[in-house]
Amino acid sequence: MKIGIIGGGSIGLLTASLLVKQGCAVTIYVRREEQKARINQNGILLLPDDTYFINAKLTSELNNEDIFIITTKQYQLTGLLSTLKKTKAPLLFMQNGMGHIDDIKSIEFNQTILVATCEHGAMKIDDKTVKHTGKGKLNLSLFQGNASLYNDVAKLLAGEDFPINLAPDWYEILAKKLIVNVVINPLTSIFRVKNGSLTENPHIEAIAKQTCMEASSVLGLDPEEEWANVRRVIRLTKNNESSMYLDTKRNRETEIEAISGYLLNHANGEVPFIQFAYHAIKSIERLERRDLVDD
Amino acid sequence: MKIGIIGGGSIGLLTASLLVKQGCAVTIYVRREEQKARINQNGILLLPDDTYFINAKLTSELNNEDIFIITTKQYQLTGLLSTLKKTKAPLLFMQNGMGHIDDIKSIEFNQTILVATCEHGAMKIDDKTVKHTGKGKLNLSLFQGNASLYNDVAKLLAGEDFPINLAPDWYEILAKKLIVNVVINPLTSIFRVKNGSLTENPHIEAIAKQTCMEASSVLGLDPEEEWANVRRVIRLTKNNESSMYLDTKRNRETEIEAISGYLLNHANGEVPFIQFAYHAIKSIERLERRDLVDD
Repeated sequence: MKIGIIGGGSIGLLTASLLVKQGCAVTIYVRREEQKARINQNGILLLPDDTYFINAKLTSELNNEDIFIITTKQYQLTGLLSTLKKTKAPLLFMQNGMGHIDDIKSIEFNQTILVATCEHGAMKIDDKTVKHTGKGKLNLSLFQGNASLYNDVAKLLAGEDFPINLAPDWYEILAKKLIVNVVINPLTSIFRVKNGSLTENPHIEAIAKQTCMEASSVLGLDPEEEWANVRRVIRLTKNNESSMYLDTKRNRETEIEAISGYLLNHANGEVPFIQFAYHAIKSIERLERRDLVDD
Repeated sequence: MKIGIIGGGSIGLLTASLLVKQGCAVTIYVRREEQKARINQNGILLLPDDTYFINAKLTSELNNEDIFIITTKQYQLTGLLSTLKKTKAPLLFMQNGMGHIDDIKSIEFNQTILVATCEHGAMKIDDKTVKHTGKGKLNLSLFQGNASLYNDVAKLLAGEDFPINLAPDWYEILAKKLIVNVVINPLTSIFRVKNGSLTENPHIEAIAKQTCMEASSVLGLDPEEEWANVRRVIRLTKNNESSMYLDTKRNRETEIEAISGYLLNHANGEVPFIQFAYHAIKSIERLERRDLVDD
């Protein structure tokens, strides 16, 4: 079964090398010619010292594959989805947030669609080098389509380095992860702190908890249960800098639209803390770019 | 008429030197022996090159004065107010925010009380040096007591360098200034920007406007009128760094309690944007101190 992985970011590189390691046939699709060339020449280096030779192509050169695993950011899906619809292959989406769910629904795919939340920690060092910073599992769920295909894919992907958890309810795993993300990502970026500070500092914790309450209410989950889950993830990742914090530090576009933006779009009542943080991140994105121009 | 100025910060030093310049008899009261000694030895230097010799004493050595002008921060009033009650002298309070109004009410003063908002810009360079960064006026109002005494004080203080505006409604001048402060001070500190960015960046502006709406509602003023006023002040001070931004930069205690804290205490409905910013500043105060300890 030929696997196409779309996206050459940290999760794309990590997934590609872990699947090759356990014997899968993998092609990785990237946006830039330069990254394609480097991977084809040197393979992917999974630190400290495992190199995996993997066929790399441009996203514009999509082959027939038996399944596509889409690891790009949600804001990079535009344009890609209609191409994927034409392939008729099953698709596995691994984006943060839930913005991609709206995107997927708007396309009306006919093929089997899986979604997953990824608990692996990964850091991209350069175009062909990735560090596996935290072992986790992939929570895999059927969004629509063929249930036996879903089981086949799970068996195909599962391995010692790539454990799979079959999650019966796609909405629940994405919603729970979204709540974690809407608390941790914007707040660590605004306050420029590691994850652990969110509960070590009682004033940030007050903001974090209120944000969790608002998000749980939008998504219809139990606020206290989700707050316990958010606190657990904060404890487990207390020494990490969140992906959004790293993005704002490095003046890169953030995933704020897929995370806070999704909740603002789907809120029926008032969600002022999510709204404040949303505007704060959007303004930081603009300020950082202004700084770049000024420099 | 002997004037006692309490507080050796930027506004205390500026007020003392401007009043001495126009011939008033002034004693300045400060907290630290070191500042007292420096002022007694060298006078106050009003940059670029005017030196005014002024009698300095410690706040613990309060003399009889014909009026006290209190220029300390609101959070430094504790303990001072009961001493001032005993002097029976008229008192003029020049604090930011409205936290001092609650403090004054709790003491039940018998003497004449004036309050003022100060439009002068001042920057303290060192214990005896101050820079007059923006000429403005003092909006002076009677809070309680003798109206003819109020007029006498206004005449005494008024001068070319110290213009006085007699404001008939003390609540209105303090409330309008408080709205300006609750927008400009916390938001410039959170986003680490000069005042002008609050309206140049549309996402910070959305937060600023919503904050102004909440504050106007708590204080019973017209939201659109106050937003126009806040925008006007932001334009006039666009190149300035707010006092709270400077305080957070320098790891000093901020005036957040007198500003946002006052509004949280007096709100009947929900004021989530003010609440978010309040917790944000309180957490920054703690984070900065932690950084100091870590270094």
